[in-house]
Amino acid sequence: MAHSSVPPRRARESGPASSEPARETRVYGFNACLAAFARRPEALRKVYLVEARIAALKSVLAWCVKHRLGYRIVDEADLEKLTRSQHHEGVCFDLLRRSPLDLAALLATQGPASQPSLLLWLDGVGNPHNLGALVRSAAHFGAGGVIVPAESGLEMSGAAARVAEGAAEVVPLAHVADARAAQSQLRAAGYRIAATVPRQGVDLYDAALPSRLVLAFGAESEGMSARSIEAADLKLTIPGSGEVESLNVAASVAVILGEYWRQHARGARS
Amino acid sequence: MAHSSVPPRRARESGPASSEPARETRVYGFNACLAAFARRPEALRKVYLVEARIAALKSVLAWCVKHRLGYRIVDEADLEKLTRSQHHEGVCFDLLRRSPLDLAALLATQGPASQPSLLLWLDGVGNPHNLGALVRSAAHFGAGGVIVPAESGLEMSGAAARVAEGAAEVVPLAHVADARAAQSQLRAAGYRIAATVPRQGVDLYDAALPSRLVLAFGAESEGMSARSIEAADLKLTIPGSGEVESLNVAASVAVILGEYWRQHARGARS
Repeated sequence: MAHSSVPPRRARESGPASSEPARETRVYGFNACLAAFARRPEALRKVYLVEARIAALKSVLAWCVKHRLGYRIVDEADLEKLTRSQHHEGVCFDLLRRSPLDLAALLATQGPASQPSLLLWLDGVGNPHNLGALVRSAAHFGAGGVIVPAESGLEMSGAAARVAEGAAEVVPLAHVADARAAQSQLRAAGYRIAATVPRQGVDLYDAALPSRLVLAFGAESEGMSARSIEAADLKLTIPGSGEVESLNVAASVAVILGEYWRQHARGARS
Repeated sequence: MAHSSVPPRRARESGPASSEPARETRVYGFNACLAAFARRPEALRKVYLVEARIAALKSVLAWCVKHRLGYRIVDEADLEKLTRSQHHEGVCFDLLRRSPLDLAALLATQGPASQPSLLLWLDGVGNPHNLGALVRSAAHFGAGGVIVPAESGLEMSGAAARVAEGAAEVVPLAHVADARAAQSQLRAAGYRIAATVPRQGVDLYDAALPSRLVLAFGAESEGMSARSIEAADLKLTIPGSGEVESLNVAASVAVILGEYWRQHARGARS
């Protein structure tokens, strides 16, 4: 298969959706790349792959040829440099970032106030492995979206997207500028806001989880601020042996999403 | 505070518990190191720390002085080299590895067959972040131990121990040489063995989980072998939206441990 040439920057910048290189992101990992292509092929800008991935990425390469996008067969070492990771799994894409929604747009996708909906609110979570794992769990359990306060600076990096194994393309992301206003907007849409605390909250397995629920999490080491916890409608604690300080944040998310599924989504889906 | 000198290798090898450097392991991360010291101070061989950690590690340094163990104040760059990680959190320990138990010894700690007990069986799980997160969840939910077939080559690396945040010291580890014999031994002790499969198993939330349960997991990418799945007494599926292929292995472990807790441990503890 012939290697296409790299499109000159002008051609690249004339694309319909973006003229800012900063709006591009580099995604790597086989499943993450395939998921991005399946859902947003028009966002694709450039493909790098190792020779052994040519067959598996045939449809992507055909798309590149048809839409005059550059792709390049590279070796493992090049991919390591391009992705700054050893976990590239033989492929990386440059593609346009998904634009985060605003809260109103996210809420419009969640149905009327009578319909169950679970959203995550992330105030921190700096580790890309945690963020990716958490988004993958959110996609698995059908969470409606992830809300990120603008000041948290949180973003879905290439490393997080790889760990998410494609889930970063599934779960809508909303940015909110004013956390307090966003909380009012959520309550007006029928949501209750739950903070997870390591001790002295309501035992998760004794709690009747509200059917419209925002689960709020803070940064790994600091947890949520006392102010955010006070502002929550509900404080949840995942019970345990007491042998360790707390669960990992991605594990906490998975456990609560599972319990929410047991209480609400099961009947609705089956 | 004066820096102690490094003990010569002979002195180090004359310690009571080990004469093999290969039996030492390097643990890093603040919580992981403190947990190791709290539970097995006699295993400590050498301490490296940054100056900013002196106050927080005062009792460890006092122990070193008393037992003539070496400690060294180093800078961040040295710790990065020693741990091959940026996530050392200012401290690393060389300490004797915990010797894995054999299965009979592990079972002896789990009480009579009438008593609830949950064990993990790991056939793979190569990623230290997953392994560490999983062991932390196991400790949180009071799992009785982790069983590792000898041929899996799985071990608790420094990176995994850091992610486990001390939990690697809490959860007993057993190595088994003959997987089939071990499964018979487990069944004789009242356990049922459950494999987790992405599709077509019993819905986790419809299953009455056996009170003595071995949860078996395969490697991240391949999952369990067909033979291992066939050999299981029970196949469990964590239900979900179907939007992503499956949950991350550490998330799966957390979700099932949580549900087991809900069904069995709750009443017993409260």
